[in-house]
Amino acid sequence: MVYIGIDVGGTGIQIGVVDAQGTILCKGETPTLVGRPYEDIIRDMGNCMLRVLAESGYNASDVTSIGVGIPGIADAQTGTVIFCTNMGWKNVPLRTELQKYLDKPVYIDNDATVAGLAESVCGVSAGCHSSVFVTLGTGVGGGIVIGGRPWSGFHGVGSEIGHIPMDIAGEPCTCGNQGCLERYCSATAIIRMGKQQLLQHPESKMYELCGGDVNKLNAKMVFDAAKDGDDVAIGVFNHYVDYLARAIYTIIAFLDPEMIVLGGGVSKAGSFLLNAVRERVPNYLLFKTLPYSKIEIARLGPDAGIIGAAMLGKDA
Amino acid sequence: MVYIGIDVGGTGIQIGVVDAQGTILCKGETPTLVGRPYEDIIRDMGNCMLRVLAESGYNASDVTSIGVGIPGIADAQTGTVIFCTNMGWKNVPLRTELQKYLDKPVYIDNDATVAGLAESVCGVSAGCHSSVFVTLGTGVGGGIVIGGRPWSGFHGVGSEIGHIPMDIAGEPCTCGNQGCLERYCSATAIIRMGKQQLLQHPESKMYELCGGDVNKLNAKMVFDAAKDGDDVAIGVFNHYVDYLARAIYTIIAFLDPEMIVLGGGVSKAGSFLLNAVRERVPNYLLFKTLPYSKIEIARLGPDAGIIGAAMLGKDA
Repeated sequence: MVYIGIDVGGTGIQIGVVDAQGTILCKGETPTLVGRPYEDIIRDMGNCMLRVLAESGYNASDVTSIGVGIPGIADAQTGTVIFCTNMGWKNVPLRTELQKYLDKPVYIDNDATVAGLAESVCGVSAGCHSSVFVTLGTGVGGGIVIGGRPWSGFHGVGSEIGHIPMDIAGEPCTCGNQGCLERYCSATAIIRMGKQQLLQHPESKMYELCGGDVNKLNAKMVFDAAKDGDDVAIGVFNHYVDYLARAIYTIIAFLDPEMIVLGGGVSKAGSFLLNAVRERVPNYLLFKTLPYSKIEIARLGPDAGIIGAAMLGKDA
Repeated sequence: MVYIGIDVGGTGIQIGVVDAQGTILCKGETPTLVGRPYEDIIRDMGNCMLRVLAESGYNASDVTSIGVGIPGIADAQTGTVIFCTNMGWKNVPLRTELQKYLDKPVYIDNDATVAGLAESVCGVSAGCHSSVFVTLGTGVGGGIVIGGRPWSGFHGVGSEIGHIPMDIAGEPCTCGNQGCLERYCSATAIIRMGKQQLLQHPESKMYELCGGDVNKLNAKMVFDAAKDGDDVAIGVFNHYVDYLARAIYTIIAFLDPEMIVLGGGVSKAGSFLLNAVRERVPNYLLFKTLPYSKIEIARLGPDAGIIGAAMLGKDA
């Protein structure tokens, strides 16, 4: 038996046929072309799915289920996408529409949850009883896996780690609250802190890296300057690492999973980031002498979306 | 089959024989007399357990397991109590010692976790798939139940909701960090805020309730003055409710359980507190139009410790 995984993004929709071990057997892609009626997008999705299935050499009867990862949230009961801001979707009956192309159980979950599930099936957290995946990108997303199963909450509104309050009177967040975790732990936060420092310290290496245009500064430039020994960038990096360590401590104090996996663009900094974070986390631990969650960098890369989506139907 | 539940406190040890529905069939008590060698305390515990079992009319062969709730943390593998500050215990082999009196599986967990489990077996969260129990007392404790099973973390250091960072540069906490949730949501926080206000506003009703001695002010006096319409106390109450609503929102954003149960001394304020908190939580929700965790007051009272401890062995 095989599983179909669909990774829905604002630019493209990636679709794969995946085996029970999380190996992609065949994959394909169709452009999202955001702005079209959802029926059109799902039609392209459905046709691409059938094409990839045919190419894989498997038949409809070999397919256990279809899983879809979306940058939004879905109602697990009805299979309706409740919100998917990047797509402009609201209350889209994705399960029903998709079943017109292939009549199989359809599971839909958040993209961070799906990526976390993929890592726990065949990535860095494979074999772990429990893990929390944290995507460090434009925002901060979370994916909780307990006992091998994804957990997005009883009502599907959980694992929103990016919006946990971290600083009561802190930075205003896009969600309307203040001081949300993603205001301090996202790539956006690195850029904000980098810009603030660069405006005060134009002698920083960051100035050169962004070609003298502060608005072109990105998180990688800040980290690269820090790696290069630039004191101003090192200050920003250390500040960021401290926030991230507090965020990781929050996950430990709350859920204490076997492993915490860092993914998303910022995690590409690899051991430079990982070593600094691992060194900083113990400062905040409640029980200094006891074991706690392993901290690792995600391993699967962009395929995690297809794999994790496919695995939503495994043991479901 | 029956289950033995042991609720270990700094003053007394409560022991009960409990059926699978969480009904206490027979119970007894022995004083803790903190300060004695742990062998002596566990000897009294073991003998009291055998006495209560005999009184219940059941035999050793009827007992499925023994469960113990402690104000500390234990190693689930070895059954050793790692820390139990109130008792002065460190690395106490509770399971091994207790099995000398009755050779049954021994499960040990944190008292807040145990109380949460009791509520989910036969209290306010009975029938809920998932719940988070929050004890609002001198500190703030947490008990997570998912799929009917308690979750104290993979390493047993989770569900420490009181020590989630809430305000980065906030109030110093006994744990060494700053701005922990319990600095804002405990009875201790109510007293601190009440005292601060009372010193500035001696005309407050709180002054009368504490007999003019600020050091005698307790959380109930603050709430009673607020109920009575005292503006200063209402200010403290509203401030507290706002913190508690943020804490509840944090639990929703992270785990989104089916229900969040408020227990501990502060929860005795009942609907006065509950209604105010329920009204305040939606302010912080990420998805304003979607369902989220029910918020309720704990129902079981002091027996929760025995019941929940006993239920640790059910379906374990």
